[in-house]
Amino acid sequence: MSTLCVPSQVPSVAEDCEQLHKAFSGSIGWGTNEGLIISILGHRNAAQRKLIREVYAETYGEDLLKSLDKELTNDFERVVKLWTLDPPERDAYLANEATKRWTSSNQVLVEIACTRSPKELLHAREAYHARFKRSLEEDVAYHTSGDFRKLLVALVSSYRYGGDDVNLILAKSEAKLLHEKISEKAYSCDDVIRILSTRSKAQINATLNQYKNEFGNDINKDLKADPKDEFLSILRSTVKCLVYPEKYFEKVVRLAINRRGTDEGALTRVVATRAEVDMKIVKDEYQRRNSVPLDRAIAKDTNGDYEKMLLALIGHEEA
Amino acid sequence: MSTLCVPSQVPSVAEDCEQLHKAFSGSIGWGTNEGLIISILGHRNAAQRKLIREVYAETYGEDLLKSLDKELTNDFERVVKLWTLDPPERDAYLANEATKRWTSSNQVLVEIACTRSPKELLHAREAYHARFKRSLEEDVAYHTSGDFRKLLVALVSSYRYGGDDVNLILAKSEAKLLHEKISEKAYSCDDVIRILSTRSKAQINATLNQYKNEFGNDINKDLKADPKDEFLSILRSTVKCLVYPEKYFEKVVRLAINRRGTDEGALTRVVATRAEVDMKIVKDEYQRRNSVPLDRAIAKDTNGDYEKMLLALIGHEEA
Repeated sequence: MSTLCVPSQVPSVAEDCEQLHKAFSGSIGWGTNEGLIISILGHRNAAQRKLIREVYAETYGEDLLKSLDKELTNDFERVVKLWTLDPPERDAYLANEATKRWTSSNQVLVEIACTRSPKELLHAREAYHARFKRSLEEDVAYHTSGDFRKLLVALVSSYRYGGDDVNLILAKSEAKLLHEKISEKAYSCDDVIRILSTRSKAQINATLNQYKNEFGNDINKDLKADPKDEFLSILRSTVKCLVYPEKYFEKVVRLAINRRGTDEGALTRVVATRAEVDMKIVKDEYQRRNSVPLDRAIAKDTNGDYEKMLLALIGHEEA
Repeated sequence: MSTLCVPSQVPSVAEDCEQLHKAFSGSIGWGTNEGLIISILGHRNAAQRKLIREVYAETYGEDLLKSLDKELTNDFERVVKLWTLDPPERDAYLANEATKRWTSSNQVLVEIACTRSPKELLHAREAYHARFKRSLEEDVAYHTSGDFRKLLVALVSSYRYGGDDVNLILAKSEAKLLHEKISEKAYSCDDVIRILSTRSKAQINATLNQYKNEFGNDINKDLKADPKDEFLSILRSTVKCLVYPEKYFEKVVRLAINRRGTDEGALTRVVATRAEVDMKIVKDEYQRRNSVPLDRAIAKDTNGDYEKMLLALIGHEEA
């Protein structure tokens, strides 16, 4: 369900590095050659990019990320850099950025905690240690407060069971418990947070199905009592990220594109983090919801090298 | 700092398995041969025991743990079984038992969450998934409530930064914050729990040193305002486990031995979990605090095969 196109004949790593180095140094005559960068990095998978970064550093004595930093600018720089990072490192970077800019409407931490697999989240936490010499939960706890802290720290600290085993009796009783608490508007009570932050995704899915069967509404409908309440909004995102990640990402992309002045930050983040995961499903979901193919919407809203890189990542083959 | 004695010439794994199998089947004439079991399992390290368990299962078609279960009884059975388990599996087992028998005076969860290294705790959580098809934090959250839940879930979910880097400015400000909250008797407030459950052990140590320098008392003295309050008692254990694990374990052993009718559960747990880690330091600490060597105290309070196995694990060489 990846949208990445890797050519059937990939050049050797050494060759890729040499071409990238040329693209930066402008030794082929035109300053930085962005097209060449896209044609290489935009068409290599995570393992290949990792190797390129290693060999590049060995060969030229500089981290590829640093060269990108020096040569590129703005949105194009950000998408290429995020994409080039190894996924756990990228999540660590995005999560750190989110803790520093945290506001109650910032849902990046929920997104990272809930759409990644339990193992992936763990690897992100390890990468966070290595890069920031602190733990992710430590920074989240430090930069947030109140109910948001209670929810977010629990979500980023979770290491959920990743299997499919489901306890249906428990699902029934916890559906009832959730319904009670939501009816009482006790949205941030311990039980709601406990269930959403510790149960496995399969178990939560079973619980929410029971909820719907028993009480008639999707839980997210009941969590919309006050559409302006930001804690409710983050709870709805939590549910979506856990159970329907493709719908969550479709909405992020839709809002990013439909906004007056595209939200490049969000668009870049979703494309760079999902291209190798489930971008194909997100694209299908986008088309179904907006009656426009995602690549056409992106082409309309963005331009230049930034546009080209995004389109490469969502599945355009090398020109 | 391990107390385990592994002979310089260890028999082959196949030979160990054969001897164990003989010890169970009584094929050498006397029913189960407990001495033989001690002489083998009581003198092999974790990697060797793991291999023995694998080869035993392959050779005899039965998990060694199951054979031990059938052949041994009571305290001797428990110490041999706990010891034979791989450390992460053993922690998962002990933690699960603790969630099921949880009372506010049960400090096993704190012990596992705070005396293990961040990596070890993580491996225990992985082993928990594998064995119980649920997450540790999920079971802890389900079986506890109120302030205890708030603290325990945060502790078992933590994946602290494991390095030595310390931020002294932060240590000062958080020492002040802790002192304020403790003065207000806000023991279970978010900040106290956040600091104890997310900061690295090195950082907490620096903070508590600042606390003492600035405010005159050890934090644990200030956390003794009401000696009967069980939440305060668990907070003191948390601090001890994080910063002075050997003192914590010495006290558990001391209370287990000094109690009317030894607390074999606690004694077994500490010996089986620490023998390969820091039992040497715990023994030294015990002697310093009680003016009696630990092995003499254990010999006085226990007997038979149980005594022999404990003594083997705390450093008696094979007879």
